[in-house]
Amino acid sequence: MRRISFLVILSTFVSFAQSEDEAMLKKIYDFSLTDSKCYSWLDDLSNKIGHRLSGSTGAAKGVLYTKAELEALGLDRVFLQDVMVPMWVRGKKETGLIIDGETKSIVQVCALGGSVATDKSGLLAEVIEVKSIDELKSLGEDKVKGKIVFYNRPMEPTNIEAFTSYGRCVDQRFYGAMEASKLGAVGTIVRSMNLRLDDFPHTGAQSYGDLPKEKYIPTAAISTNGAELLSKKLKINPKLQFLLRMYCQTFDDVLSHNVIGEIKGSEHPEKIMIVGGHLDSWDLADGSQDDGAGCVQGMAVLETFKKLNYKPKNTIRVVLFMNEENGGRGGKKYEELSKQNNENHIFALESDSGGFTPRGFSFECDENNYSKVLSWKSLFEPYLIHSFVKGHTGSDINPLTSKKMVKVGLKPDSQRYFDYHHAANDTFDGVNKRELELGAATMTSIIYLFDKYGID
Amino acid sequence: MRRISFLVILSTFVSFAQSEDEAMLKKIYDFSLTDSKCYSWLDDLSNKIGHRLSGSTGAAKGVLYTKAELEALGLDRVFLQDVMVPMWVRGKKETGLIIDGETKSIVQVCALGGSVATDKSGLLAEVIEVKSIDELKSLGEDKVKGKIVFYNRPMEPTNIEAFTSYGRCVDQRFYGAMEASKLGAVGTIVRSMNLRLDDFPHTGAQSYGDLPKEKYIPTAAISTNGAELLSKKLKINPKLQFLLRMYCQTFDDVLSHNVIGEIKGSEHPEKIMIVGGHLDSWDLADGSQDDGAGCVQGMAVLETFKKLNYKPKNTIRVVLFMNEENGGRGGKKYEELSKQNNENHIFALESDSGGFTPRGFSFECDENNYSKVLSWKSLFEPYLIHSFVKGHTGSDINPLTSKKMVKVGLKPDSQRYFDYHHAANDTFDGVNKRELELGAATMTSIIYLFDKYGID
Repeated sequence: MRRISFLVILSTFVSFAQSEDEAMLKKIYDFSLTDSKCYSWLDDLSNKIGHRLSGSTGAAKGVLYTKAELEALGLDRVFLQDVMVPMWVRGKKETGLIIDGETKSIVQVCALGGSVATDKSGLLAEVIEVKSIDELKSLGEDKVKGKIVFYNRPMEPTNIEAFTSYGRCVDQRFYGAMEASKLGAVGTIVRSMNLRLDDFPHTGAQSYGDLPKEKYIPTAAISTNGAELLSKKLKINPKLQFLLRMYCQTFDDVLSHNVIGEIKGSEHPEKIMIVGGHLDSWDLADGSQDDGAGCVQGMAVLETFKKLNYKPKNTIRVVLFMNEENGGRGGKKYEELSKQNNENHIFALESDSGGFTPRGFSFECDENNYSKVLSWKSLFEPYLIHSFVKGHTGSDINPLTSKKMVKVGLKPDSQRYFDYHHAANDTFDGVNKRELELGAATMTSIIYLFDKYGID
Repeated sequence: MRRISFLVILSTFVSFAQSEDEAMLKKIYDFSLTDSKCYSWLDDLSNKIGHRLSGSTGAAKGVLYTKAELEALGLDRVFLQDVMVPMWVRGKKETGLIIDGETKSIVQVCALGGSVATDKSGLLAEVIEVKSIDELKSLGEDKVKGKIVFYNRPMEPTNIEAFTSYGRCVDQRFYGAMEASKLGAVGTIVRSMNLRLDDFPHTGAQSYGDLPKEKYIPTAAISTNGAELLSKKLKINPKLQFLLRMYCQTFDDVLSHNVIGEIKGSEHPEKIMIVGGHLDSWDLADGSQDDGAGCVQGMAVLETFKKLNYKPKNTIRVVLFMNEENGGRGGKKYEELSKQNNENHIFALESDSGGFTPRGFSFECDENNYSKVLSWKSLFEPYLIHSFVKGHTGSDINPLTSKKMVKVGLKPDSQRYFDYHHAANDTFDGVNKRELELGAATMTSIIYLFDKYGID
């Protein structure tokens, strides 16, 4: 009898908590879909400021703008962290030309981040097409020397998550130039990381690794349509030539900043939960999806708590990291300062997969905390949030190494992401207001739950 | 002991069936994401043929094109069903003008389907704004007579499914003119069924009901930006006037067709499972989302079975219905002929919610069949198909009334749908190839499962 009463009381308590959480999530989603500023913040970042490549005036303006907007929210603390970032500048629009006897075909190319330029007259050479770095190595120096290496392995269309296909292709872009240079290549062209056929070249990070500077070779992305054309023409005439002209330059590192705002925890101010994205973007467009969306969603989490008058138990911090795209310096600096200041991070959530309809989260955490998340699944069902998986969470929060912490990545629908990623069409009009807001609400909701129930 | 062996055999059998189904779904998704023609069919329908409003040359071309493409698939039977459809023609682009003293502001308007035209000089009248038909009725004839009624209830942003918000707003568009006319109004303007603020007016069906023809009044949609402006100006000057010019005309009904292709069932040829969408569209754009997408996805189901050499047990039929938008005549004719021919329909699936990333299905069926569906949930998990709910399935399959049948609606992500619905921007570039293909694969998969395991 006593046991039954206890169970009744327990189940009453559980269902009360459940309905309190249901009500809170409803408030969060309602606020996000009606009153959040996140879409107008993104409008400003994209259309008033524009691209925010590390070291650019756009990046500097982005720092000032987001700091001012966070201050206007009336947070407990808004501050900047100094971070030295690389400064790479594209210069004039690049030229790519297939020269096949008398026939010249223009193709869309762009320098990869950190690449060296070509000579002013351009780089003219024969082309050797490969599908992978392994294939390149198997060809050996004889067949590669003096040529432009053309990496043309497409993203696999059959993976349901587009990020899986990206992960299986991006080695061509990141290591391609370094590996080709070791075999005497004079340049590389990499098929854009894009699942569709179009005319946008997609830039992105690449690394020369430990190569001495004199071995750095120009490396460019080519649009998927350009890659298809080049490959077709090479089958007919393997001796055709490619002319590449690029004007990029690397300058000395410059001072930039992570932007941080926080609400102090009411019970455990020393326990820190962070949320955010990266404020820098590539330079070909506004970076609305990558990662303006993640920044304004992170800001919206704190906005929502303030406007709903919710006092978190733990300190909630939005961090807008600088330099994710070509160096990751902001994330590393954040971790370095966190160690210096003996800060106790218990939770980190990054949104860096675009502002599309949210589908769920990825988690890096222990089984206890993961079970806790799974017990919240039904709370998310009304919002069509259904995917709770283990996996990579975010580049900027990756350096945080506290063992007891929970790391989370927002998982939006991934099908359209690589249509825009690092390309000239990553502009504001590609982001749907509701999809962005739903993402912000989803992030706020999981932070509310972890703040309330704690990290195991 | 015997019991254990039996369980072992049973569980081996179940897991064999499960893995066979897993393998088949993988084949279906792989085929759809690599080799299906559905995206190029949509390209042709949208870019070579264009809009397909009932009675238009586009609709006639759409019939011939899809019939020819179905024939090229080598189906067992491809045929047309005659159906008489209304023919309403918009004529020249409409004009909407707010006349506020000396200030004239152009706003974007378009006639609603079936509306009568204004006089050549246009309709000029004062405007009365209401949020609902109920509010209109409460105002009474005195306040409405001689005026243009402006219905301005926005779609609610807080519903997660955009279709819920549509359902709660669309009475203004469908019945608005009829109800206003009863109270002596001279015209109506309806806020576009659109969740965002933009300059596209969204057309759609409306009905004068049983009104005598002399009581028909011109009715137009106004863009959401236009509605906001008009509402603001009315607050300042309730006496402002609105000038509406529309040139639309209704002609006699004309002959058109449903387009049908089928694969005969290997075991139960008399049992018919249908899949499809509607071939007609509104006239302001190509109708790529509404419902070119559903048509080519339906065609892709049969394409996939043929190309994978899967022989369905039941007869699988794709039906491209004519005249869903302004009459629903195709769906009614299909049901009428089905009764005449004593056909036995056991299943119908409609895709008419856009070509966006599929999230799941809605069902109209009994509990037995619904339980069956739920037992297949895990098969769909790898494809991120998670929503299996009861609810409205499709307008074209609605007339089918066999009690023992299962009706299904494809549920794609709904957030962007009303950005395009019935508006001039419902064009091919709004459809993502992968999202369209994933929808086709999802439809093919559930038909494969119901074909294999039968309808209870």
